[in-house]
Amino acid sequence: MPLCLDLTFEICKSMEIVLGIDIGGTSTKLGLVREDGLIVEKRTINTAICKNENVFFSLLFHEIEQFLADFVAHYSCIGIGIGAPSCDEAAGVLEQAANFPFSERVPILALFQDQFDFPVCLTKDGNATTLGEARYGAGRGIDNFVLITLGTGIGGGIVLNGSLVKGANGWAGEFGHVIVEQGGRACGCGRSGCLETYASATGLQRTALLRLAETTKESSLREQVAEGLQAKDIYLAAKRGDELSLSIFEEVGQHLGLALANISAMFDPEAVFLAGGLAAAGDILFDPLRAQFEAVVLPQLQGRITIKASALDLNEAAISGAASLVWNNKNLITT
Amino acid sequence: MPLCLDLTFEICKSMEIVLGIDIGGTSTKLGLVREDGLIVEKRTINTAICKNENVFFSLLFHEIEQFLADFVAHYSCIGIGIGAPSCDEAAGVLEQAANFPFSERVPILALFQDQFDFPVCLTKDGNATTLGEARYGAGRGIDNFVLITLGTGIGGGIVLNGSLVKGANGWAGEFGHVIVEQGGRACGCGRSGCLETYASATGLQRTALLRLAETTKESSLREQVAEGLQAKDIYLAAKRGDELSLSIFEEVGQHLGLALANISAMFDPEAVFLAGGLAAAGDILFDPLRAQFEAVVLPQLQGRITIKASALDLNEAAISGAASLVWNNKNLITT
Repeated sequence: MPLCLDLTFEICKSMEIVLGIDIGGTSTKLGLVREDGLIVEKRTINTAICKNENVFFSLLFHEIEQFLADFVAHYSCIGIGIGAPSCDEAAGVLEQAANFPFSERVPILALFQDQFDFPVCLTKDGNATTLGEARYGAGRGIDNFVLITLGTGIGGGIVLNGSLVKGANGWAGEFGHVIVEQGGRACGCGRSGCLETYASATGLQRTALLRLAETTKESSLREQVAEGLQAKDIYLAAKRGDELSLSIFEEVGQHLGLALANISAMFDPEAVFLAGGLAAAGDILFDPLRAQFEAVVLPQLQGRITIKASALDLNEAAISGAASLVWNNKNLITT
Repeated sequence: MPLCLDLTFEICKSMEIVLGIDIGGTSTKLGLVREDGLIVEKRTINTAICKNENVFFSLLFHEIEQFLADFVAHYSCIGIGIGAPSCDEAAGVLEQAANFPFSERVPILALFQDQFDFPVCLTKDGNATTLGEARYGAGRGIDNFVLITLGTGIGGGIVLNGSLVKGANGWAGEFGHVIVEQGGRACGCGRSGCLETYASATGLQRTALLRLAETTKESSLREQVAEGLQAKDIYLAAKRGDELSLSIFEEVGQHLGLALANISAMFDPEAVFLAGGLAAAGDILFDPLRAQFEAVVLPQLQGRITIKASALDLNEAAISGAASLVWNNKNLITT
C-alpha cells in the first residue's frame, strides 16, 4: 500500500469531531461537528412521538450509539454538546419544560454522563443557537445582538459587550415567555399571553384556527384543516396570495415587531437575528414585522437596528453552537 | 498656631472633589462628591421653570460657578460628571428629550466644555443612577441587576456580568419607553402606551385624573385637584387609607409587576432596584407590585429575584454615579 494513501487513512480515522445535539419539542437533531462549525453528518429523531422522558432518552441514546458506531472509522468523538429547552445549566436539569411531556425535573446531564464516557456540555437551546450564530453565522464580529428562535416555541439568546448573557440563574433570553397580552392565550409554561402563544409556529397555527372559527372568509386553509394544518401550510397559502393566510402573518409581524421594539428599548442591540422555521418565511413575515418595528421603536433607534434571518441553516445553528461549547473547553485545556 | 491645626487646614483646602449633576425634568441637582461617594454639599435648580435650553443652561452655569466659588476654600474641583436624560453619550448630545422643552439636539458636552476648564463626563441619567447603585449602593458585589428610576419619567440601567450595558448606540435601559399598552396613553417621546405614561410619578397623576373624571368614588383627592394634585398627594392620601388612592397604586403595581416579570424573562437578574420619588412610597407600591410580579413571572424564577428600593438617598444616586465617571477616569490616568 503506498505511503500517501496510508497517511490519508490515518488522518481520516483520527479526525476529531464533536456530537452536537439540539433537543426540540417536535424533533431532536444530532450532528457530527468539526471545529470550524461544519456539520459533516446528521440524524434526526422524532421527539413528538415520545410519551415521557424514559421513552425519549432510550430512543436518543440508542440513536447516538448507532450514529457514532456508523462513523467510527472516520471520526473520533471527543465530546457531546447539548442545547436543550428550559434547562438549568448549573444543575444540569431540564426544568418544567413547556411543550415536552416530561417530568418537572429531568437530570439530563447525569443521564448523559451515566451513559457516555465523553465530556458533556449543556446549555439552553436558545444559547446554543446564539453561540452558533456568534461563532459561525451572522453574529461574527458583532458585540451586541439578540437572537430569537421561532420554532414550536420561542427562545433566544443575548450577546452584550461581546459575551453571551446567561443571567443570575441561567434563564436570560426567554423571549418566548415575555407576556404580550395579559389574560391572553394559555401557554405551555402555565401562564397566559406569552409571546410564543402568538408568534411561534404553534402561535401562527392557533391564530389560523381562530380566524377559521370566527370568520367565513374564503381560504384554502379551510380544506386543509381536515387533513392537518401546519405552520408550513399557512406559509405556502400566503405565498400563493391567500388573504386569510397573509393576514395571519401580518398579525404575527405585529406581535413580533412590537416585541422587538421593546427588546431594543432595553438592550439597544446592533442587530436582531431570527432563526427557526418561521424565520424561513422571508418577506411574508419580515415585511409586516419591519413595518411594525419601525413604527413603534424608540424614535432615537429608528433605522438603526438590523433585523434579519440567521445566516445559518435552520437546522444547524443550535447543533454547531452546542458543539462549540466542547470545542471551547478543549481549547481551554489544550492551549 | 500649633502645627496640627495648620496641617488640618492644608488638607481641607486641597481636598479633591467632583461636581456631580443630575439633570431632571422637574429639578436639576448638583452635588460635590468625594471619591467614596459621599456628597458633601448640594444645590438644586428648578428645571421646570425654564422655557428652553438657553434659559436652562444660563441658570445652570450660573449656579455651578456660584456653587464652586462658595466652597473654593474647602474643595478643589477636578471634574464634572453629568447624568442627563435621552443623551447620545458618544456624540455628547441631548437628543429628543421627552419631558424637556428643549430643541431636538442640544450639544450639552460642548456647552460645558466651552464654559468650564474641568474634564467633563456625560452619561444617560439612568446609567448614572445605576453606576451610583453599583458603586455605593445596593448593587455592590452583585454581577447581574437592573435598576429602574421612577421619577417624572422612567429610566434605568442594566449591569450584566458585572458591567454596565450601554448597547450599540448608548440607548440600553430605556425601560420607560417599553410599550405596555398598544394605542395607550400618549407619551412625551411621541409614541403611545409607554410604561412611563402609567408607572412614573406623572403616570400615577394621570391615572388619578382619569379615576376622578370617570368615577364618583369618594376621595380626598377630589378637593386636592383645585389646589394642585401631585404624585405625593396621592401617596399621602393612600397612606391615610383613601381607597381611590390605594387603587391607583394598585394599578401602578400591576403595570410595574408585569414589566419587571418581562424584564426578568429577558435578563434573569439577581435583583431589581427601584429608585426615584415613587420608590419611596414603600409597601403601598411594593406590596401590589411584588404580588403581581410573583403571579406573572416565569415559573422557574418565582421567589428567586429580589425587588427592593435603592439603598441610596433618592436624590443622590445619580449625582454620585455621574461623579464616579470622573473618579474612574482620574484613577485610570493616575494609577
